[in-house]
Formats: sequence, C-alpha cells, structure tokens
Amino acid sequence: MAAFSFNKLVVVGVGLIGGSLALALRERHGGTGTIVGVGRGAGSLRTALERRVIDEAIVVDDDAALAGALRGADWVVLAAPVAQTRALLGAIAPHLERSTIVTDAGSTKQDVIAAARAALGTRLAQFVPGHPIAGRESSGVEAALADLYVGRKVVLCPLAENPRALVDRVAAMWEASGASLHEMTAQQHDAVFAAVSHLPHVLSFTLVETILRAPDAALKLSFAGGGFRDFTRIAASSPEMWRDICVANRDALLDGIDAYSAVLATVRAAIAAGDGATLEALFARSRSARAQWGHERDAASKLKQC
Amino acid sequence: MAAFSFNKLVVVGVGLIGGSLALALRERHGGTGTIVGVGRGAGSLRTALERRVIDEAIVVDDDAALAGALRGADWVVLAAPVAQTRALLGAIAPHLERSTIVTDAGSTKQDVIAAARAALGTRLAQFVPGHPIAGRESSGVEAALADLYVGRKVVLCPLAENPRALVDRVAAMWEASGASLHEMTAQQHDAVFAAVSHLPHVLSFTLVETILRAPDAALKLSFAGGGFRDFTRIAASSPEMWRDICVANRDALLDGIDAYSAVLATVRAAIAAGDGATLEALFARSRSARAQWGHERDAASKLKQC
Repeated sequence: MAAFSFNKLVVVGVGLIGGSLALALRERHGGTGTIVGVGRGAGSLRTALERRVIDEAIVVDDDAALAGALRGADWVVLAAPVAQTRALLGAIAPHLERSTIVTDAGSTKQDVIAAARAALGTRLAQFVPGHPIAGRESSGVEAALADLYVGRKVVLCPLAENPRALVDRVAAMWEASGASLHEMTAQQHDAVFAAVSHLPHVLSFTLVETILRAPDAALKLSFAGGGFRDFTRIAASSPEMWRDICVANRDALLDGIDAYSAVLATVRAAIAAGDGATLEALFARSRSARAQWGHERDAASKLKQC
Repeated sequence: MAAFSFNKLVVVGVGLIGGSLALALRERHGGTGTIVGVGRGAGSLRTALERRVIDEAIVVDDDAALAGALRGADWVVLAAPVAQTRALLGAIAPHLERSTIVTDAGSTKQDVIAAARAALGTRLAQFVPGHPIAGRESSGVEAALADLYVGRKVVLCPLAENPRALVDRVAAMWEASGASLHEMTAQQHDAVFAAVSHLPHVLSFTLVETILRAPDAALKLSFAGGGFRDFTRIAASSPEMWRDICVANRDALLDGIDAYSAVLATVRAAIAAGDGATLEALFARSRSARAQWGHERDAASKLKQC
C-alpha cells in the first residue's frame, strides 16, 4: 500500500464531505501540510477557517488567488455538488501543475468523468474519480466530522489513462481517513447507486407527490403511520441535490426506473388476478433478502465496534 | 358518549390485536366480565390463557363449544386475518343472538363488509365494521399490550343498516381501550390505507425484488446504505399478511398503483429531458409536505405525553 502524505492539499467545496476529509487527514492521520479551502461563498469558508478545518480560504472566482493556491499543491480534492464539476475543473485546469493529483467525491461518476475529459485536456491522467459512501442528515462544514469515513466504503473508478501508482496514492489517502477501498468501472458504479440509492429517493419523493395530488390528501396524511414514515424519510432530502443527481445519473436511473416499473407491473397483474401465491412468493423472497442484508450489516457494524 | 361494559366478550383471533384489546378492556378499563378466546390453533390459545388475556379458550372448529361461547355473549370482536373473515362469520352466524354486538379489527373494510353481507343475513345490522390503527413489529398474543391502543386512532365504517346507538357502543368500547375514534365510509377507508400503508409496502417489496433480479444483485446490496435501509424496512413484513391485504383491498390498491405509476412516468420524463426545474419543484413540494407531516406527528405525540 502506498503511504499517504501531503504538503498542500486543496479542498474544492468545504462542506460536510470535503470538511470531514480535511479533519480526518489532519486529526486522525496527523497530517501537517497546509490545507487550502476553495469555495463559492465566503460564509462557509469563514466557518471552515474558524473551525480550523482549513488553513487558508480562496474564493473560486478570484483567479489569481486560485492560481496561487494551486501552485505547489500535491493534492486537489473536488467535494462540491456534481453539477458544478465542469465549471470547477475548468477554473482549475489552467493552473494545474503536472505533479498534482486530482480526485473527487461526487456521487455519480460517468458525468464527472465526461466533465473531466472536457475540462482537463492533457491533465486528464492526473484525475482519479472517486466516491466516498458516507453522509449525515445535516450538511455543511458545521456538520463535518474527523471520523465520518471510519469504516465506510470509498469507491474508485480509475480511468484507463491513470497510472496505477496514482490510483494507489488516492486509495492511500482515503485509507488514511479511515475508509475501506473498492474499485469498479464508472458505469458499474452509476448502476449500483442508481439501484440502491437514487431510485429509492425518486420512489419516495414520488409517493408523497402521489398522495399530494389526491383531492383528500390531508385526510390521507392524517392516517399515515410508521410504514409511511420510514418509506418517506428520504423524501426529506435536499431537492437541489437530488435534482442534480437525477440529471447527472440520468441513463442509469432511467434504466433503474424501467426495471422497477416492469416488476411493479408484474405485482399489479398478480393483485388484479387475485394471484395470492405469486404475491406471497415475491414478498417472501424480498423479505428474506432484506432480512439477510440487515443481519450482514449489523454483523459488519458490530465487527467495527470491536 | 355511550358507557362501555361487557358481561361476556368473545374475541375471535387472540393475537396481538385481539389480545391487546382484551388486556385493555380488563386492565385499563377495569372490565369484570368473562373474556372468551376463539382461535384455530390450541397453542396460541393456551398462551393467552396462561397470560390471563382470556378466561376461556374455544377452538373454532368445535361447533358445540362455539355455540356455548356465543350463548349470552354481548360482544363478539373479530381480530383474525381478514382473509378468514368470511369463514369465521359463517361459523359464528348460526349461533349469534339478536342482542350480540359484532365488530372487527380488519385492516381492509369493503371486503370484510362483503363477507359480512354474505355470512350474516338478517344479523347484518348487528355488525359494525372497524379498524384500529395500531401494531408492533412483533406479532402474536405474546406481544399483546394493555396500552397498545392508547392515543391511537380507530376508524369505524358504519353500515347504513347499523342503528346509531350500536355504532356509539362500539365507539365506547374502543375509547375504553384508550383510542380516539374516527368515522368514514368503507370506500374512503380502503383508499386512504391503500395510499399511505398498502402502496408503500408493495413499493418497498418491489424495490428489493427489482434489485434481486439484477445479475449483480449481491454487489448492489453490498453498497446499499441508510436510504435503502429506511425505504425497505417495511419489506421485512409478513408475506402472508401482505398477500391477504393486497387481495382484500385489490381495487383501491390498483387505483393507488396506477396513480403512483402516472406520477412516476412524469418524473421519468423530467429525468429523460434533463428538466431539473420540474424535478426540483416536485422534490421540494414532497419534502415540504413530508416535513410538515413529521412536525405535526411529533407535536401530536408530545401532546399525548403531557
């Protein structure tokens, strides 16, 4: 495994994800290099400085300051919303040195890679796409935690252009933050997260909208209970973030919606036919898989506590 | 409000729901009458006797014993799975006295009423359909609680044939168990619970099945996180119970699936078109409604604790 160190790490987007990485590399890993935060708004950068998450703050629109920040940087980590990737990489590209490693923390990968191909030109091989699978209910640098990544998974989707040594160094950075590493193609990544994360969010938002469109929506909601509560907890997520993810991961998500709609049509047909045997078999299969998933997850989290 | 009392209360189906009602009427309300449990299996009836949930146990197939149990009974409460309603009412009907009030606790109402119309004949007016909105993760008489209904809603769906005084007496029984009462038509009831309970369960089972049908299901499940966990918690529910509910509430559930599919098609079209504005507006509307629902629910549960 490659060792991890940094002299100057530039975090672009100092929110929950970028801020937690900075805290992890400093507090958990003991890194002593400089951490520069780059952001759009002065407010959250000020908070990041006050919390000592970063040492210096640069507003991304200040091209001269950005050039200075990138001079001699060995690391650039993009941790802004994925919709901003193209613009941010475009701003960074002219100042990027040949020895700087660039990686990202975006929750979709094919669109981020397309943006990187468009923006980075001859520097593309320096960019290793990544995605830490971590989060909290609260967002922003105020919510950043040094141990956010401990025991969590990080997926890397290396490009054919990436030298192996570079991929290993990015893996070492995430391991230094406490995470375990996994590799897959960007296409595989986007299909996996469309199925287990993006699709459930869309389906949850869609249920609430369906109820709201009914003339007796208020009556219906007044009788909603624990099942509705759990099913729609993720419909309380950020509309802007999920808009961006839906647009960014369009193709995989459309495939997911179509696969889901096909199964729902099967279930609908069984209900219409009063075919209890088909319904019971399908429900039993789902319950068994869901229960096994829960047990494995519980076992894994107990192991981590030891 | 009518006062509630009983001399002989017959509970048909002594599980979580029927057992909790028996405990509530005895322990909370202080009822001193006899409680007779009727069931299919001797095992759970024995447990109910041991826990002193009931005073006497009758196996439903023993027609002579059933006749004895119903002799002089002022109350019969059906709390067995809805799929058994027709058979149970058929077994009870020949022994039912004119002064006995019959009610039920089934989670669907139009099918229960159809079963009652078929089984009860001239005794139909004595049957007041009901549905307590309460439950626990565990089931069976072992899980029964005297305070299961405290602060919970009970919906009554009176028949045109029911004398008002009878409906009031059933309402008084549930109030004695700690519940608050609501009335609506059976059609309205079934549409409400199709939307906020039955549909989410079907959608949750369907998501797990969709993932299981993918060739890389294991990989996908290994990356499932908190969103998947919450969304699929209800996919761990009893396949038999949900099979029965889907069949029993077929028409309302099909309407719910169709309304849902129409909204999902709208969302799909917006994703396909990259129409971020439509997606954000819809997600924001859902989030706002879900958040308000959560606040009102929290406020109501705090009020109950005072």
